[in-house]
Amino acid sequence: MKKLLAICFVLLFVAVQAQIKKVEPAFWWKGMTESKLQILLYGDKIASYQVELSEGLAIEKVEKVENPNYLFVTVDTDKIDGRFFTLYLKKAGRTVDSYKYELKERQANSRDRRSFSSKDVVYLIMPDRFANGDESNDSVKELTEKADRSNPNGRHGGDLRGIINNLDYLHSLGATALWLTPANQDNEKRTSYHGYAQTDLYQIDRRYGTNEEYVELSNELQKRGMLLIQDYVTNHWGISHWMIQDLPSRDWIHQFEDGEGAYGFKRSNYRTTTQLDPNASDIDTKEALNGWFDTTMPDLNQSNPFLLNYLKQNAIWWIEYANLGGMRVDTYPYNNKEAMAEWVKAITKEYPHFNVVGEAWMYSPAHIAYWQKDSPIAAIDGYNSNLPSVMDFTLYTDLSSALKEQESWDKGMVKIYNALSNDLLYTNVNNIMVFFENHDTERWNEIFESNPKAYQMALTLVSTIRGIPQIYYGSEIGMRGKKSLGDADIRHDFPGGWKEDSTNAFISDKRTVVQKEFYDITSKILNWRKSKDVVHNGKTTHYMPENGVYVYFRYNSKDRIMVVLNNSEQTQKLSLSRFAQNLEGSIEGTDVVSGNRVDLKADFLEVSAKTSLILEIQ
Amino acid sequence: MKKLLAICFVLLFVAVQAQIKKVEPAFWWKGMTESKLQILLYGDKIASYQVELSEGLAIEKVEKVENPNYLFVTVDTDKIDGRFFTLYLKKAGRTVDSYKYELKERQANSRDRRSFSSKDVVYLIMPDRFANGDESNDSVKELTEKADRSNPNGRHGGDLRGIINNLDYLHSLGATALWLTPANQDNEKRTSYHGYAQTDLYQIDRRYGTNEEYVELSNELQKRGMLLIQDYVTNHWGISHWMIQDLPSRDWIHQFEDGEGAYGFKRSNYRTTTQLDPNASDIDTKEALNGWFDTTMPDLNQSNPFLLNYLKQNAIWWIEYANLGGMRVDTYPYNNKEAMAEWVKAITKEYPHFNVVGEAWMYSPAHIAYWQKDSPIAAIDGYNSNLPSVMDFTLYTDLSSALKEQESWDKGMVKIYNALSNDLLYTNVNNIMVFFENHDTERWNEIFESNPKAYQMALTLVSTIRGIPQIYYGSEIGMRGKKSLGDADIRHDFPGGWKEDSTNAFISDKRTVVQKEFYDITSKILNWRKSKDVVHNGKTTHYMPENGVYVYFRYNSKDRIMVVLNNSEQTQKLSLSRFAQNLEGSIEGTDVVSGNRVDLKADFLEVSAKTSLILEIQ
Repeated sequence: MKKLLAICFVLLFVAVQAQIKKVEPAFWWKGMTESKLQILLYGDKIASYQVELSEGLAIEKVEKVENPNYLFVTVDTDKIDGRFFTLYLKKAGRTVDSYKYELKERQANSRDRRSFSSKDVVYLIMPDRFANGDESNDSVKELTEKADRSNPNGRHGGDLRGIINNLDYLHSLGATALWLTPANQDNEKRTSYHGYAQTDLYQIDRRYGTNEEYVELSNELQKRGMLLIQDYVTNHWGISHWMIQDLPSRDWIHQFEDGEGAYGFKRSNYRTTTQLDPNASDIDTKEALNGWFDTTMPDLNQSNPFLLNYLKQNAIWWIEYANLGGMRVDTYPYNNKEAMAEWVKAITKEYPHFNVVGEAWMYSPAHIAYWQKDSPIAAIDGYNSNLPSVMDFTLYTDLSSALKEQESWDKGMVKIYNALSNDLLYTNVNNIMVFFENHDTERWNEIFESNPKAYQMALTLVSTIRGIPQIYYGSEIGMRGKKSLGDADIRHDFPGGWKEDSTNAFISDKRTVVQKEFYDITSKILNWRKSKDVVHNGKTTHYMPENGVYVYFRYNSKDRIMVVLNNSEQTQKLSLSRFAQNLEGSIEGTDVVSGNRVDLKADFLEVSAKTSLILEIQ
Repeated sequence: MKKLLAICFVLLFVAVQAQIKKVEPAFWWKGMTESKLQILLYGDKIASYQVELSEGLAIEKVEKVENPNYLFVTVDTDKIDGRFFTLYLKKAGRTVDSYKYELKERQANSRDRRSFSSKDVVYLIMPDRFANGDESNDSVKELTEKADRSNPNGRHGGDLRGIINNLDYLHSLGATALWLTPANQDNEKRTSYHGYAQTDLYQIDRRYGTNEEYVELSNELQKRGMLLIQDYVTNHWGISHWMIQDLPSRDWIHQFEDGEGAYGFKRSNYRTTTQLDPNASDIDTKEALNGWFDTTMPDLNQSNPFLLNYLKQNAIWWIEYANLGGMRVDTYPYNNKEAMAEWVKAITKEYPHFNVVGEAWMYSPAHIAYWQKDSPIAAIDGYNSNLPSVMDFTLYTDLSSALKEQESWDKGMVKIYNALSNDLLYTNVNNIMVFFENHDTERWNEIFESNPKAYQMALTLVSTIRGIPQIYYGSEIGMRGKKSLGDADIRHDFPGGWKEDSTNAFISDKRTVVQKEFYDITSKILNWRKSKDVVHNGKTTHYMPENGVYVYFRYNSKDRIMVVLNNSEQTQKLSLSRFAQNLEGSIEGTDVVSGNRVDLKADFLEVSAKTSLILEIQ
């Protein structure tokens, strides 16, 4: 009898496997604001079956698409009592398979969670390149690319455990939020370490760890008052994604009739101005938005309603599941903009305070500002992105050139001044991300040859102007990397993240003299910043640079700080009377990094060459 | 008895001269929309007298200012019947002086006059440098600087008569509107030829001619269907202006307490971004707006209501008196922006279709667009300039670099494409002035060494894209000039404008081979443009440049034109299928300049190196 039961069980199991191969999302939550849930069922010829729910429960709709291996089942979770219900797959009245669907309880305050803001400092990590906390997952059987640290473009073994192990380091440094480049499965054959060619949107890449470890990372961050920001890619998936390999419909991705290969590949022309250019031709616009970002990245068609729902729910699933504190969205202006406005709206409908920052890598503040929620510029177009936050790529571009150039009417520090003179264009200038480098750019310390003064200047700027500072792993210890040598060079392993490393920058007394100098500057400024509402939300007054010196103030009703950036090769003597508007009644200033006091009642302030000061004003 | 009368007459005359030295405006018109008229009376201690009108007429108000030599008398012209009334200056009930004030009849349709628009081609002339039509006024007794053609920065004798004499030349060329740099009296000692340091706002500089000749010029233009555009300067007057020499009040001009000289001179910092920068410091803003444009140009304080009224009325006086067809306003963002919004409003209240273009020389389309009427960007600031038109300085800047640079992702022809991709930002993109040079820039033919192909490319662009093309005297015959050698080098005399000139480019058969080549291209394109509504008001579709070739179409429901600019050094073969959106149903195109026909049903269009085509599509 036991044997018979066992045989039956095996047969049943085979049957289940045969019919329902995938259910996405695999579970959901009760009490979401949007009660309608689109469940994707995948299996051989699954569209030829009927779907029913547990007795007494009604399905909203069952929809078929071109490919009979897919069914999209919509249920109204508000109409379902209890934690479980069952989806039955039937043929001719007979159940051939079923799936027990769970509706979990939400965490307390899930809806009203805090998200990253100008109070935070975002630290950007590529998980493969930070720290190898678990060597057992460096290579895994089911994923193609195996660890090979000798290959600059290979998998190096960094993982979630490595990050978890070093959270105290990050916390001490003064970071308050982590942005990881995508950690979902990327099962491309080569160069999969960057994670932007995702192959499973519900599964952390096993070489980084498990979904549970991802939640653990988020919880460990929260224990330290920190947040986890997920890097979300709506624009494309990896070509090895299971749904790309068996497309639900031809229009799931953008295929060009005159394109190359099985999927009609055409590369994007990358002219994202077509999104807002009233003169743009249809073909340029189409090639910008529908062209692929790269050969292994089929371009998703977000105007397909099943896909758009899938992307909305997947984002919300991760926020709810992993208690996320924010999202960064890749290649923002390459997407269908109307669909993206809906996607963001779906997220902020569930989480009203949730912050989402879009990578709108454009070249003028007006173009970047276009993408921020309620932009009056976008309103000319009748458009509203709903996107709370954008990245200040103009400032990024201007910053390094400003510090390299000879000063003139339009060169040098005035570029920073000019960048900030556009703040009018942004609807919420405190909610823009400011940075001097990221995983796609030359490393700052490469441009300035590990000069701590140049580093301090950039860090001072992004830490004290309006917006949300973002720093990139390793720069706080002086890491360098040359973009022209390829992306690998700007994504070196963090020293000390691997047990075989000869140095360990995570540990204070193991840092080299150079690493220590960089670390100490960073830690000082970022930790000081944590409690400074005047920096997080204060107003700004800035002064036209003179002789290579740029001065600005942040202030609110309680506090004032004065920031001085002397980028010239000489000591400069500033007449303090020029700053009377902001210095009225002040006595002295204390520099945050050196602790030095300066007399603000004096006629002049002397500032050494290539020096940055953050003066708290008394 | 006769002798006695004669003596009385002389005494009366002396008395008049002694009391009322100036009345401005000297006359006005009936039936203006704004019936209130502010009459300035100037004379020794004039404020100690009473003012009365002819019997039965009431004065609205008589206002004194700091300086007792001024009185501002406001009358309501709607309440005055007849063509004349008299202003009596009285002391202790006794009339000591009087002024017979005339209210003229307005010309028919004065209010609804046509003004310049995208239908026009504006030709910019410096009157001193174009043609000397009247040698008798080269030097005049009452004005300091005398003619000296040997001095590049001196007065050369060009005048209104010279322009009038050559109107047929301009008409044949295809110009439809003339913009003269300021023609009012500029009685500075040196370099007065540019006219931007005006010393009498109601008087044409006698070295250019008389007020009557200015009206004659306007009328002669109108006979040819052309318009006169006045260059108006609200920002500053010349330091020798009679009112600056005897300021109505200290605040008539901006004087800095820590400034230099008798008037507290401080030079502008020229940072006009302060006008829209929410972070700008008060001191930078003040120095930008209130600082002087140059040492001889006291900066007017337009927030002084008497001055603002004076400027409004003076502008309207010239429009009405000289039958103007438009205004160009100098150094627009250096003015008090609220006052300027009122100034423009006063003009467009009188002349609803009147066009005014502001020289907002800024470096991003968002900053320029800010100054155009109803700008949603300015609305963020709660501001509306009321200014109908601005100049496309971004396109100007990008144009010459585009044609000089090696093509790359962000260099070369893509700069023009990018400039036009910002059209969203302008509230009325047909009403922006487009140009490749003016009296303040390097001459185009200097940059491109009198290469007619480079000239044709620039001319083609400004003549066929949206907006109002503006060309600069002399370029149509290949004139060169290097800004780095000083302004004089970009403002050479037009050859043939002086009887001693060895060549005469005004006359067809006297042109050199080079002059003829340039002239013929210009004349062909501009005359063709006159009747092309598809260019004046059509829509635009443009295509991302490929291989140094930029292509765009202008179209309306009736017509289509295709413009091809091949800036590469090679013949380029364009696949016409790329332009299907705009070429659908087309058969062939005829090039406006060469008359050549091209087959638009073919697969490819071959375009020679450095060639521009304007194809009318059949």
